[in-house]
Amino acid sequence: MNRQVILKSRPAGIAQAENFQIVQSDMPTPAEGEVLMRNHFLSVEPAMRGWIADAGNYSDPVGIGEVMRALSAGHVEASNHPDFAPGDAVMGWFGWQDYACVTPDRIMRKVAETDLPLSLSLGVLGLNGVTAHLALTKIGLPKAGETVVVSTAAGSVGSAVGQIANILGCRTIGIAGGPEKVKLCTEEFGYEAAFDYKSDDLDAALAEACPEGVNVYYDNTSGAISDAVMRHLAIGARVVICGTAAISRWDEWPSGPRVERHLLTRRARMEGFVIFDHMDDFDASAAQLAQWVREGKLTYREDMLDGIEACPDALAGLYRGENMGKRLVKLAVG
Amino acid sequence: MNRQVILKSRPAGIAQAENFQIVQSDMPTPAEGEVLMRNHFLSVEPAMRGWIADAGNYSDPVGIGEVMRALSAGHVEASNHPDFAPGDAVMGWFGWQDYACVTPDRIMRKVAETDLPLSLSLGVLGLNGVTAHLALTKIGLPKAGETVVVSTAAGSVGSAVGQIANILGCRTIGIAGGPEKVKLCTEEFGYEAAFDYKSDDLDAALAEACPEGVNVYYDNTSGAISDAVMRHLAIGARVVICGTAAISRWDEWPSGPRVERHLLTRRARMEGFVIFDHMDDFDASAAQLAQWVREGKLTYREDMLDGIEACPDALAGLYRGENMGKRLVKLAVG
Repeated sequence: MNRQVILKSRPAGIAQAENFQIVQSDMPTPAEGEVLMRNHFLSVEPAMRGWIADAGNYSDPVGIGEVMRALSAGHVEASNHPDFAPGDAVMGWFGWQDYACVTPDRIMRKVAETDLPLSLSLGVLGLNGVTAHLALTKIGLPKAGETVVVSTAAGSVGSAVGQIANILGCRTIGIAGGPEKVKLCTEEFGYEAAFDYKSDDLDAALAEACPEGVNVYYDNTSGAISDAVMRHLAIGARVVICGTAAISRWDEWPSGPRVERHLLTRRARMEGFVIFDHMDDFDASAAQLAQWVREGKLTYREDMLDGIEACPDALAGLYRGENMGKRLVKLAVG
Repeated sequence: MNRQVILKSRPAGIAQAENFQIVQSDMPTPAEGEVLMRNHFLSVEPAMRGWIADAGNYSDPVGIGEVMRALSAGHVEASNHPDFAPGDAVMGWFGWQDYACVTPDRIMRKVAETDLPLSLSLGVLGLNGVTAHLALTKIGLPKAGETVVVSTAAGSVGSAVGQIANILGCRTIGIAGGPEKVKLCTEEFGYEAAFDYKSDDLDAALAEACPEGVNVYYDNTSGAISDAVMRHLAIGARVVICGTAAISRWDEWPSGPRVERHLLTRRARMEGFVIFDHMDDFDASAAQLAQWVREGKLTYREDMLDGIEACPDALAGLYRGENMGKRLVKLAVG
């Protein structure tokens, strides 16, 4: 049997456990040109909110009754396609389920870094790490000696951004929620300073930590955190818009302090980044990140949930801020 | 005697006539290394609001009792500097006054386009035209066939933006205030369509005029006009932040719909432009603009006020929207 997590109903805001249902279906059989995947690790990520939302987004929403769209990693069990053989480690759009029969367009990549744990292909060597790396370098354009501020700084994207900025010679300042995450920022992820948006006066903290202003702001949150950082941009600053985790819904569009005057007087830039525009650079980026992991320059945290039963509440928990590091669900295999 | 317009008091919002005073002072005498300028044309521009404002800006505010900072154009009357000779046509920071003794750093440029009217050096061949040209090409990055939307589309910057975008092969859509300006947009400045933000439903109008979205938005206003345009950005759009004419004050910081989600889902960019960062490109840009003027491809409107007595109310009138084209004050000379 194949256990699958399907979207039962569409939430107004963040999907909760009751919006999902676990069902059992027959084992799928690969048709000609298809590959049978067995998932070992399922990914849980903030972007899932957008994949579920009914509002127009950069991909069509997951349909009611459909298996929840997700990246996962596992091994090929059987293959009717010449490019894939049983035992290949692959990562791709296999959904929240044990098994999937997929055509090659659903396979994002064969995992080349087989000396490292497979779960990393969904985290620091996956969408999170590659997003951090490419968005920071392509839009953030960090130069050695510059000050880089990161929101959700201890998260799976943010922690990679901070460490990569350090590797590139920047000063890094993290913003995170709660003392535990703030401590992670400075003790594990190399931030020079980190602030707790729940308790610190961000304006005062940023003014002190960034006396010459913020050259790069890597924004995963929007909201009040971003409003504070925008008040401290340096001339020529670059703001990377990578996520809006602090905004619970966009169907009632939120307002905030206007950014135009900051951008004008600071001659600053804000730009959105979506990894799916940059898939041609994925393998090269993952290879670079893997090298940094092997050299001990790039570390990561995983928040490993156990078993498919953990899926329905996993996304809501992410938005409750309960995870420390990349949230994954591990499936028992073999 | 030298008539001068001084800043008498600092306004809370837009400077009104009563914030200025006209005084008479002695004719200045050029010291060693200085040049005596006689002004023929004084410029009036929206950016003056920022030059007067007490809040931090990209230049120090004009002091109370000081001659109002302004660009003007005229001829050298006497020179104690080897680079300038009596009769030279020059443009620069000579202030709202008849005469000015200046060091060369206050002279922005010698006017090379002496076959064209001197007043153009303050408009279509001056800060307005060069801003339009460089901000559009450097930040807007327009490609032939793309759709370019311009706010204050009939203004001295906007009208140049629209025409230059046309020359570069783009479709242009203008937004202006009132039927007269809207008519100017399509009849004189080559816009394919133009809308009146005071009476039209901008969302509906933009949806119809830009079915494939807005590739470049050249923003001179901020405010509700920009909020509407942001809802119609195409994937990969560029938003040039050049002015915030729709915002009457920033000391009580205004709010508006958040832009982050537009930038993220459209992978769009917003960036501020200040001409003073680009002075090395000024002469080349003015030469290109002059060539387009001679060829009849680039037209302009001037709103010529008569005599220095017109200065005190000239800026407030600009913000009342009463001018059609570049506002200048002409001084009687010789």
